[in-house]
Amino acid sequence: MVPSSQGPHVNTVDVLLGDRSYPIEITSDAADRFAETIIDQLGDLSHVLLIADESVDQAWGRPLAEKLAESATDRPIRVSATTVASGEPSKSVAEFERLLAWVLSEGGDRRSVIVAVGGGVIGDLAGFVAASFARGVRFVQIPTTLLAMVDSSVGGKTGINLPAAKNMVGAFWQPSLVLIDTAVLATLDDRSYLSGLAEVIKYGVIDDAEFFGYLESHAGDLVARDPESLRHAIGKSCQSKANVVGDDERETSGRRAILNYGHTFAHAIESTAGYGTFLHGEAVAIGMQMAARMAIDTGMCDRALWERQTRLIQACGLPTTWADAQPDAMLPVMMRDKKVAHGKLRFILPTRIGSVEMVGDVDESAVRDAIVKLKK
Amino acid sequence: MVPSSQGPHVNTVDVLLGDRSYPIEITSDAADRFAETIIDQLGDLSHVLLIADESVDQAWGRPLAEKLAESATDRPIRVSATTVASGEPSKSVAEFERLLAWVLSEGGDRRSVIVAVGGGVIGDLAGFVAASFARGVRFVQIPTTLLAMVDSSVGGKTGINLPAAKNMVGAFWQPSLVLIDTAVLATLDDRSYLSGLAEVIKYGVIDDAEFFGYLESHAGDLVARDPESLRHAIGKSCQSKANVVGDDERETSGRRAILNYGHTFAHAIESTAGYGTFLHGEAVAIGMQMAARMAIDTGMCDRALWERQTRLIQACGLPTTWADAQPDAMLPVMMRDKKVAHGKLRFILPTRIGSVEMVGDVDESAVRDAIVKLKK
Repeated sequence: MVPSSQGPHVNTVDVLLGDRSYPIEITSDAADRFAETIIDQLGDLSHVLLIADESVDQAWGRPLAEKLAESATDRPIRVSATTVASGEPSKSVAEFERLLAWVLSEGGDRRSVIVAVGGGVIGDLAGFVAASFARGVRFVQIPTTLLAMVDSSVGGKTGINLPAAKNMVGAFWQPSLVLIDTAVLATLDDRSYLSGLAEVIKYGVIDDAEFFGYLESHAGDLVARDPESLRHAIGKSCQSKANVVGDDERETSGRRAILNYGHTFAHAIESTAGYGTFLHGEAVAIGMQMAARMAIDTGMCDRALWERQTRLIQACGLPTTWADAQPDAMLPVMMRDKKVAHGKLRFILPTRIGSVEMVGDVDESAVRDAIVKLKK
Repeated sequence: MVPSSQGPHVNTVDVLLGDRSYPIEITSDAADRFAETIIDQLGDLSHVLLIADESVDQAWGRPLAEKLAESATDRPIRVSATTVASGEPSKSVAEFERLLAWVLSEGGDRRSVIVAVGGGVIGDLAGFVAASFARGVRFVQIPTTLLAMVDSSVGGKTGINLPAAKNMVGAFWQPSLVLIDTAVLATLDDRSYLSGLAEVIKYGVIDDAEFFGYLESHAGDLVARDPESLRHAIGKSCQSKANVVGDDERETSGRRAILNYGHTFAHAIESTAGYGTFLHGEAVAIGMQMAARMAIDTGMCDRALWERQTRLIQACGLPTTWADAQPDAMLPVMMRDKKVAHGKLRFILPTRIGSVEMVGDVDESAVRDAIVKLKK
């Protein structure tokens, strides 16, 4: 991650997946160069289909569409653009079908490239459209939330929801390129922005003790959205996720499960609190606390980990407890979690900062205890 | 393809695609062993979701579902079953969504296995459901038409239609196992059955001169649906397709295009005659004649090829000409074909029996001439 000597600072993370490898380029205030980068990196670019979240379209979608259309190349690039309503309801079969019909009506073919501009919802939806149109076309991701930058931009998970379940339909489909400009984060409200830091902290706990130390000493800079600290933190987060995904692209070996640290609790928190009460990252922060609590109680790690994690989460303006937690409501949700194997609860628990283990066959009372202790 | 010394004759073709390799087992009157074979070949089988064409459900779907549910293993296999209406309209987004919701409501998870019983429509639809549910579950194909046996059972193309275009949405998703019983063909009406022979003849022309000779000497047996000849012809056809697909799994190198011999004409024939006038195989037979005609006229092959192909197609009870062909109507359809690159028509043309070449930049008048000459 060496800044280039000319032009803006660019931190690059290479996601290594054989012939599906791709780079993530992390910059600040350099989105006006994205059109150029896309043209440079993707050969044979004749038709771009830009799908933007309506909330970022004017500031980030349209300017990119215009730059792409204006680009002086031998053959002009045809640019089609559409927007999608913000929020989870857009990840529907109906919206999937609408976008596919739109790609077709715009003359899309197997050489077309889909560019997604937005957060996780847009990336998941547009990514599944890219995976499915003509049995797969190329796909560029421009994540505009911190959560999407450090989570969904790596790993190739795309998908939509069914009325009865989230993320049960989709494909593993890797992007050809991910472009990140930290300047886009300036427009996020505080709560949404800070929520993304929970996943950043997660990478420190599960994979990288040195990075955890960096976060401890730079929490103030990150809360203040300092560009240099953000580029470093986003780059390190993407690198940690890329290492895990590179070992287990299709989630078959179990390695990829470590990314779920705090998440079995978090899904139960989001579900029992009512979707919308907590942002995903807030629930993940509390969920990591519950998981660390279980790890202490079962003697897997020492109290120092718990204390450092608590302090860092607090320094990032995120919750560490949940006064209204109801174990009787949360446990049945956790038992229905798709990561439950043959009716046994499994958890990712820390052994020390930078290292976690999967623990199967966990006693229900230990889970209950951890939830109750986090009621404050 | 050596018959086993015990039990029924089984011809096996191994489709070699690295960690996505799978076997095709071709038998006669042995469908009562399919449950056993599925259990043997797929480890960790706890839940089967059987999706059958309604027209073959009673004879082939339900008996298999019952056998699977009855199978004496340590842990009983849970079997869910549903049917799909026969015909192309079932390849819709609506039916895709209905099946996904059904899989979810039946408690499907990433270890579930989808079994498709039917022709190409069911295989394409159920295969895309398998590719998309939980980002991909295992999939067994039991093709019940000759066309599905020799074409869609090899290659991993799955998909559905949009109102404005066929097969524009889908995934490459390889089955884990394909099971074929030639006895199922006994219930097909003559026209549907013979239609499948067009694709069989195609493999002889594009890939295998020896097999073409076999077809010349066994056309009568095949028309009479002789089990041994059928097993041989289906096995050889699957082997030819497997060789091509093994070189070009995702249709990127161009090699897979040779499978389209006769098909650019065929699609234009089907479209201008009105869907339903010709069965797909009938249009392919006429399309191969038009392609061979072009090859003769441009000096790419000698007249003997044309004569042998004409005689074989006739011996299989398929049409070799089309009195109502309208070049003015067919050409615009061919120009819209997704295999057209940058506005240039490309054709797969034979050089000799067993060998074809892709010819780009074809003169429109040569296409027109070939169509007119086939008006008889």
